[in-house]
Amino acid sequence: MTESKSTNIVWHQGTVERPQREALNQHRGFTIWFTGLSGSGKSTLSVALEERLYRMGCRTYRLDGDNVRTGLNRDLAFSPEDRIENIRRIGEVARLFRDAGIINLTAFISPYRQDRDMARHLSQRDDSDFLEVFVDAPLEVCEQRDPKGLYKKARAGSIPNFTGISAPYEAPENPEIHVHTGEASIEDGVNQIIDYLCANGYIEAQLHQATQSS
Amino acid sequence: MTESKSTNIVWHQGTVERPQREALNQHRGFTIWFTGLSGSGKSTLSVALEERLYRMGCRTYRLDGDNVRTGLNRDLAFSPEDRIENIRRIGEVARLFRDAGIINLTAFISPYRQDRDMARHLSQRDDSDFLEVFVDAPLEVCEQRDPKGLYKKARAGSIPNFTGISAPYEAPENPEIHVHTGEASIEDGVNQIIDYLCANGYIEAQLHQATQSS
Repeated sequence: MTESKSTNIVWHQGTVERPQREALNQHRGFTIWFTGLSGSGKSTLSVALEERLYRMGCRTYRLDGDNVRTGLNRDLAFSPEDRIENIRRIGEVARLFRDAGIINLTAFISPYRQDRDMARHLSQRDDSDFLEVFVDAPLEVCEQRDPKGLYKKARAGSIPNFTGISAPYEAPENPEIHVHTGEASIEDGVNQIIDYLCANGYIEAQLHQATQSS
Repeated sequence: MTESKSTNIVWHQGTVERPQREALNQHRGFTIWFTGLSGSGKSTLSVALEERLYRMGCRTYRLDGDNVRTGLNRDLAFSPEDRIENIRRIGEVARLFRDAGIINLTAFISPYRQDRDMARHLSQRDDSDFLEVFVDAPLEVCEQRDPKGLYKKARAGSIPNFTGISAPYEAPENPEIHVHTGEASIEDGVNQIIDYLCANGYIEAQLHQATQSS
C-alpha cells in the first residue's frame, strides 16, 4: 500500500482476478499440501514455514484441523465417504486461496493417494500450483513422540482405523518435496522447502536473502 | 514486501495468526455480505467495489456462484437443506478469509434472514467483521433488467421457487449498509460503501484520498 507498490502495478481498471491479486502480493498463489503420519511433524513444519514466508513478506494462510474440522467440516465424521468429502472440501478451499493469490499450507494426514490426487486435480490448469510435501518420519519415531497420546490409545484399541496402526498410510510416489523429519530438524525441513520454492520460481530468491541477512 | 513495510511490523518471531496477517496487509480482514434479488446488482457492485479496494492496495477476494457453486458446493442442489448448507459453507469460507486478513465479498441472493444471521454468527467474536449490504432494487426494476433471462423463465413456470416470484425474499432489517440500486448508479453504491468503511475504521480514509487524487 506504499507509493512504490502502487506504481509497480501495470493494471489500471477492470475486474480483479488472480493475476492482479498476485501482482499486488508480488508472488504467486499456490498450495503446499503436507501429508504424513500423525506425529511426523506436518503441523510444526507448516507453522515454521509460514513464519519464514511471513518474514519474507508473503501472504499466507494455514488450513489445519483447528480451523477446518471445527468449522467448514464440522458436519463430517470419519466414515470413508466423509473422509473423502473432508479432503475434497479442503482441496476446494485451497483452490479458492490460490485464486486469491495466497500461499496456502494444508496440514492433514491425508493418508490415501487417491484423495490427495483428487485435491490436486480439482482444477486442471492449476496442477503446477499444488506442491505435495511428504513429511516422512518412521512410524517408530512418530509413535515414540506421540505428542497427543493418540498412538497409545490406538494400540489399546480405543481409536479404530488409526493411520499407521490399524489403517494404511499410502506414501506419496512422486511428491514435489520429500522431507525426512525423523532425522532432520524442523529448521532443515523449512530450508529444504524454501530452497525448492526459490529454485522453481514460486518465490524470489532475493526475498529469501534479504530475510536471512536482516 | 518493500523495506518500509517490513519495518512497520513489530512482530518478529512466532506463530503467524490473524493479527500478523492483518499487520502485513495494513488493513483488517472482514466480510462484506451482499444480499438482494436476482438482477439487483450484487455481482456488479461487488466487482466494482473489489476494483476500488484493489486500487487502494487492499487484499480482497470475491466469493460468488462462479467459484463456489462449481467447486466447493457442487454437491448441493436447491432443496431447503441444501440451501442452508450452501450458505453455511460460504459463511465458513468467509470466516477463513477473514482469519487470513482478507477483505472478502460474497454475492449471493441469500434470501432468508435466518441463513444470513447464521453466516454472521458462525464466529461469535467476529460479529463486527461481518457487514451486511442490502442491494435494494424494486422487483419491477430487477425483472425489467433480467440480465440472465431468469425472471422470464420463472414467470413461465420453468424455474420453481424463484426468489421474488414464487419464493420469498426477506429484506434485511438492520443491514450495516443499504444501497438503493434502483435509482443510484453502481459508482454511487461503491462510494457509499467506501464511505462507510472509512467512517467505521475498516479501511483508512487516507488510502481512499490517495487513490482518488491519483
